[in-house]
Amino acid sequence: MITRPPLSQLGLSTGKKARLNRILFQHGLRNGTALFLPYDQGLEHGPRDFFANPEAGDPKYIAKLAQRGGFNGIAIQIGLAEKFYWDYAGEVPLILKLNGKTDIPSDAAALSPLNATVDEAVRLGADAVGYTLYVGTPAQEADFEQYRKVRADAQRLGMPLIVWAYPRGEAIEAKGGKDSFYAVDYAARTASELGADVVKVNFPQPEKRSGVKREYDREFESQEAIDAVVRSANRTLVLVSGGTRAGDEAMYDKARQSMEAGATGLIFGRNVWQRKYDESLRFIERLQEILAKYPTP
Amino acid sequence: MITRPPLSQLGLSTGKKARLNRILFQHGLRNGTALFLPYDQGLEHGPRDFFANPEAGDPKYIAKLAQRGGFNGIAIQIGLAEKFYWDYAGEVPLILKLNGKTDIPSDAAALSPLNATVDEAVRLGADAVGYTLYVGTPAQEADFEQYRKVRADAQRLGMPLIVWAYPRGEAIEAKGGKDSFYAVDYAARTASELGADVVKVNFPQPEKRSGVKREYDREFESQEAIDAVVRSANRTLVLVSGGTRAGDEAMYDKARQSMEAGATGLIFGRNVWQRKYDESLRFIERLQEILAKYPTP
Amino acid sequence: MITRPPLSQLGLSTGKKARLNRILFQHGLRNGTALFLPYDQGLEHGPRDFFANPEAGDPKYIAKLAQRGGFNGIAIQIGLAEKFYWDYAGEVPLILKLNGKTDIPSDAAALSPLNATVDEAVRLGADAVGYTLYVGTPAQEADFEQYRKVRADAQRLGMPLIVWAYPRGEAIEAKGGKDSFYAVDYAARTASELGADVVKVNFPQPEKRSGVKREYDREFESQEAIDAVVRSANRTLVLVSGGTRAGDEAMYDKARQSMEAGATGLIFGRNVWQRKYDESLRFIERLQEILAKYPTP
Amino acid sequence: MITRPPLSQLGLSTGKKARLNRILFQHGLRNGTALFLPYDQGLEHGPRDFFANPEAGDPKYIAKLAQRGGFNGIAIQIGLAEKFYWDYAGEVPLILKLNGKTDIPSDAAALSPLNATVDEAVRLGADAVGYTLYVGTPAQEADFEQYRKVRADAQRLGMPLIVWAYPRGEAIEAKGGKDSFYAVDYAARTASELGADVVKVNFPQPEKRSGVKREYDREFESQEAIDAVVRSANRTLVLVSGGTRAGDEAMYDKARQSMEAGATGLIFGRNVWQRKYDESLRFIERLQEILAKYPTP
Amino acid sequence: MITRPPLSQLGLSTGKKARLNRILFQHGLRNGTALFLPYDQGLEHGPRDFFANPEAGDPKYIAKLAQRGGFNGIAIQIGLAEKFYWDYAGEVPLILKLNGKTDIPSDAAALSPLNATVDEAVRLGADAVGYTLYVGTPAQEADFEQYRKVRADAQRLGMPLIVWAYPRGEAIEAKGGKDSFYAVDYAARTASELGADVVKVNFPQPEKRSGVKREYDREFESQEAIDAVVRSANRTLVLVSGGTRAGDEAMYDKARQSMEAGATGLIFGRNVWQRKYDESLRFIERLQEILAKYPTP
Repeated sequence: MITRPPLSQLGLSTGKKARLNRILFQHGLRNGTALFLPYDQGLEHGPRDFFANPEAGDPKYIAKLAQRGGFNGIAIQIGLAEKFYWDYAGEVPLILKLNGKTDIPSDAAALSPLNATVDEAVRLGADAVGYTLYVGTPAQEADFEQYRKVRADAQRLGMPLIVWAYPRGEAIEAKGGKDSFYAVDYAARTASELGADVVKVNFPQPEKRSGVKREYDREFESQEAIDAVVRSANRTLVLVSGGTRAGDEAMYDKARQSMEAGATGLIFGRNVWQRKYDESLRFIERLQEILAKYPTP
Repeated sequence: MITRPPLSQLGLSTGKKARLNRILFQHGLRNGTALFLPYDQGLEHGPRDFFANPEAGDPKYIAKLAQRGGFNGIAIQIGLAEKFYWDYAGEVPLILKLNGKTDIPSDAAALSPLNATVDEAVRLGADAVGYTLYVGTPAQEADFEQYRKVRADAQRLGMPLIVWAYPRGEAIEAKGGKDSFYAVDYAARTASELGADVVKVNFPQPEKRSGVKREYDREFESQEAIDAVVRSANRTLVLVSGGTRAGDEAMYDKARQSMEAGATGLIFGRNVWQRKYDESLRFIERLQEILAKYPTP
Repeated sequence: MITRPPLSQLGLSTGKKARLNRILFQHGLRNGTALFLPYDQGLEHGPRDFFANPEAGDPKYIAKLAQRGGFNGIAIQIGLAEKFYWDYAGEVPLILKLNGKTDIPSDAAALSPLNATVDEAVRLGADAVGYTLYVGTPAQEADFEQYRKVRADAQRLGMPLIVWAYPRGEAIEAKGGKDSFYAVDYAARTASELGADVVKVNFPQPEKRSGVKREYDREFESQEAIDAVVRSANRTLVLVSGGTRAGDEAMYDKARQSMEAGATGLIFGRNVWQRKYDESLRFIERLQEILAKYPTP
Repeated sequence: MITRPPLSQLGLSTGKKARLNRILFQHGLRNGTALFLPYDQGLEHGPRDFFANPEAGDPKYIAKLAQRGGFNGIAIQIGLAEKFYWDYAGEVPLILKLNGKTDIPSDAAALSPLNATVDEAVRLGADAVGYTLYVGTPAQEADFEQYRKVRADAQRLGMPLIVWAYPRGEAIEAKGGKDSFYAVDYAARTASELGADVVKVNFPQPEKRSGVKREYDREFESQEAIDAVVRSANRTLVLVSGGTRAGDEAMYDKARQSMEAGATGLIFGRNVWQRKYDESLRFIERLQEILAKYPTP
Repeated sequence: MITRPPLSQLGLSTGKKARLNRILFQHGLRNGTALFLPYDQGLEHGPRDFFANPEAGDPKYIAKLAQRGGFNGIAIQIGLAEKFYWDYAGEVPLILKLNGKTDIPSDAAALSPLNATVDEAVRLGADAVGYTLYVGTPAQEADFEQYRKVRADAQRLGMPLIVWAYPRGEAIEAKGGKDSFYAVDYAARTASELGADVVKVNFPQPEKRSGVKREYDREFESQEAIDAVVRSANRTLVLVSGGTRAGDEAMYDKARQSMEAGATGLIFGRNVWQRKYDESLRFIERLQEILAKYPTP
């Protein structure tokens, strides 16, 4: 049963509604669902992510893929946005990813520093901004503080705010890990309580139960888990992430379960571009077939 | 003996008096007492708090409960306020909870980061703001500094400031714990010295004496303890919190003792909504019967 | 021999001189000496300080005592100033204590966070502001930084600045402790070098010599010690503090020696109000008899 | 094959393009390549770097060398820029190096503090600013935050931003070290993702494989490595650094391979001035012969 | 051979040149050399420094000494400047020492916090400001950041900036100590690279070689060392400090060698006032006889 709320019920300002409407109804399948292409792995993991398909190291290649593949948006850092997006400006919505970091130093007290501002997103013609919130990190205070300013700027400028709600840090590791149902469910709720318009979550893994809170320490179907996560997000729209590259059929299953649960869409990066161009397009097409079955009424 | 001071003696600015008057005399029992519904547990503890009554995970359910139950206010974070309060705007006073955190990382040096501002509370039509001050935390300097700005903004905008005065952190653990009479009494006084208009405290437990200061290390009746706490708060109005769900009769007792001591009201969350809807309404009714006996003269 | 400098030689701005003149010559004995009543122990130590005389927990009781006792000023935190001072506004000078903290967490790197601003002191009609500087604390950098802004604001607004110069922190403990002659002398000088108008010191204890610098490691009379401290403060006026409650005769002796050394006055809290009302008034009277012998020429 | 992109494709603002054009086409070989002279070693390592050729300790000597040698720019700290550049203003482009530090304290969590601003660079007539980003440092959050403001200022003022992308800190030491192909490749990409106009890298050493990520743990030719680094930088122009003084032929080889890979130029300091004046000029000439073969089409 | 540069070659703004000219040519010997009296030891070490000559604890005594002795300036903290300088305003140039600290807490990560601003120096009629930079301290980032703002303010207001370049902190202790030739040479260079107009250094001790960098680990004459230090400072004028009190003839030797090396002058505190008034004047006279031999041409 689709529980996805219509834009008109989300308490959005005019600017946010205009931009979300553009992303969801004037790009991609134009049916209220969304498929996003994240491309900040060059910063988050380094160029090693491009070794599987060296062409993918070139932002121009990715921009073309986003355009041809009919994505609802491409999420990139300020540097690539300034140097590459002007070629494709307006053709694919830009989600300016505002924070990001390398994975070189320790992640024990993870915090993703700000690399750009909402004002810069406006200048570049972005239709949304992205912020990585490391839910549960020991650096939570600094993260919430940084996030709050971004949220307020997004509110002031009518810019939709997509929160990458990532459980992370040593306390999460001790309580089930970053993909446990407990962690993902808490992350979705946190984003919602803190005012995200859209939240990106990893698909929850209810079988990861070591160290989780009592309530999560029993058997759950994966559909039950993703249903709960979408409910915890309530009026915050949900995107489900692909994560590290995995088997395609497993991916399609998760996509289907996510949409069934009321998610708004998918955000797949390495699963898309760590293969040949044509294979990428075929993979995208399969995802879109799934999305097509879950239009916003 | 009721020692609750009238609003006219609290040194309030016009705006603060107008808003407190609205909460205390134009909602709920309209007799100067108050019953508040806090609903930030989704952030503070995660969705696990909703497993006892899954419907309670939906903010719409809670808003309806607050409205039907005749609460004097509902305390929520910015995200829920923006997405849900517009449905009920004006019908139930909004207390925008300005800070909050997850309980995932260590609480040894607890600090509750700011997630919204007093200006945003004004924009959303709130009648008060809430701030959690972790009295005794090793992060005291940062907490006082953050609090000071909130207090000054509340003063500037005529917005009543409700302080959740929570003893917390490793030093408190070593000195009797967060619910000891020593800790709660000190917390109430701290809120008062620092300019809270209203202070929310837990019901003091005088039997928790291990590590407390000499003066508190003898037997006290629970009525004596709550009397002292309300006196320590002097012209700061006192709300007594329900805390984790407990037996109903014990709850009514504490409520009665609190009002007897001169408290202004009660703030009960999980005790209210971790049960079926109708049971919740019955529980609320019982609390209101108690409040009805202690009108502000 | 009185070495107390006249106001005209202190390089004061017009506003500072006007306000100090009001405190020293239009209140109390009106002879250039001063007796202050500090009342922030509810924050600094908690309500336990009021157990000896529970009435003293009520700020109204204290305000009345200050007024009847003919004090030159009452030093309180913002919360009490806002809620209680309006009853007595103008009758007793208000010293708004700008910073303060609880004594719950460790004092090893003591820092007293700011709870109010000089601008708020002006709004409340204060005649001076108070700042606790923890001389020698490992948090010295943050303390000096915070102090500097207060000093500059006080300069800008013509508000006299009284520095509670308290040696504190683990390094002080290792070098003679907070009341050693070494520590108190250094504290007085520090306040003077950093631009305090008035400095509050504890009475120095020259017999505390363990760990002090070579120069202080010999016998000194207590009169010699307080003489030196007042000299170190040079054109910064000196107030000597009562500290924890002690025998009355010992108190009078210290008061006399302080005034003999050129101090401007005394600041006594617990010694005053940790006894019955009438006893308090008698104690005050005795202190005033001492002050009367040391008018500013 | 030259893959160096033309200025017109870099998404540059007018001011940035004007200044980069001045550096690349109106100084040095005027063919789109660049040879820069960095002279901040007096701060980064101390005067010991001048012991090999004491004359080089005199900034006047260096400025003359830059002018006679036909450099495209000289990179210095604010102090030397203010006291020496006015003699040569306009004759050699100034790159104001904005941050820098001594090498005295530990480098485990390296961070290079800001010593000047982009506004000061404008005041001094600079044609670019330089910023050292310690990629992978545990102080990454502070570094990115500081960098972000510099980038935004450079954008606002149309000032080209050259990032010294230096892998550094204890995590880098554990993952192949600062000159490993892994580290240099990641650094180049980081600068590009974060919006550098030009990035300065050390020549990568693919044989440093201990602790590097799996993808880098095989044999690479040095040409392959520098090719990859330039690709990772994509539309960020690449400068290759000389590093500590080494054999001249080895230097020429690296220079050639760098230009072959599509780098824009070279930045050589100690290799240039840690020898006699005439030798320096001969060495420069050889480098320019290499650059002459790789004009921007 | 005198290498001291004339004011006209230092790239000074008009205001800086006007004020430095006043200090160097309209006070003291009026020949371009300078003798400064620092008087912040009451803060830096506490009143114990005055035990050798108790009269020196009185700022009035010191001000008179500065005036009678014909000093080119007196360096004091804001507190003494506000309370004492007005008596002597204009008669002896004021160098407002902007930062300073007590020596009570650990010096391992030394940082000297700001106690006043350049704007306040202007208000007080100062002709220069002083800043202590702890070269090599683990707190280097905070120190450089704080310094940068001071430097920018001094630039904005045309106020000469004198940097007390003091090697300090645990890393310096491990590399030869604070007076080693290595450390003093590096400190002088650092001040110059960071834009000091004048730098105060301690006389270098080339025999302190334990742990210094290779280049400094051989025999140097003390004249060689001070020559190198002045060269490292290049167009930043050099003042040599007296340090702790030592034998007079040794002092005169160091003074002579410093001037021979091209220093601009001397800055002697405890060596001056830790003796009787008349002795002080005789000592000053001897120093001035030395300075008289090294006029700026």
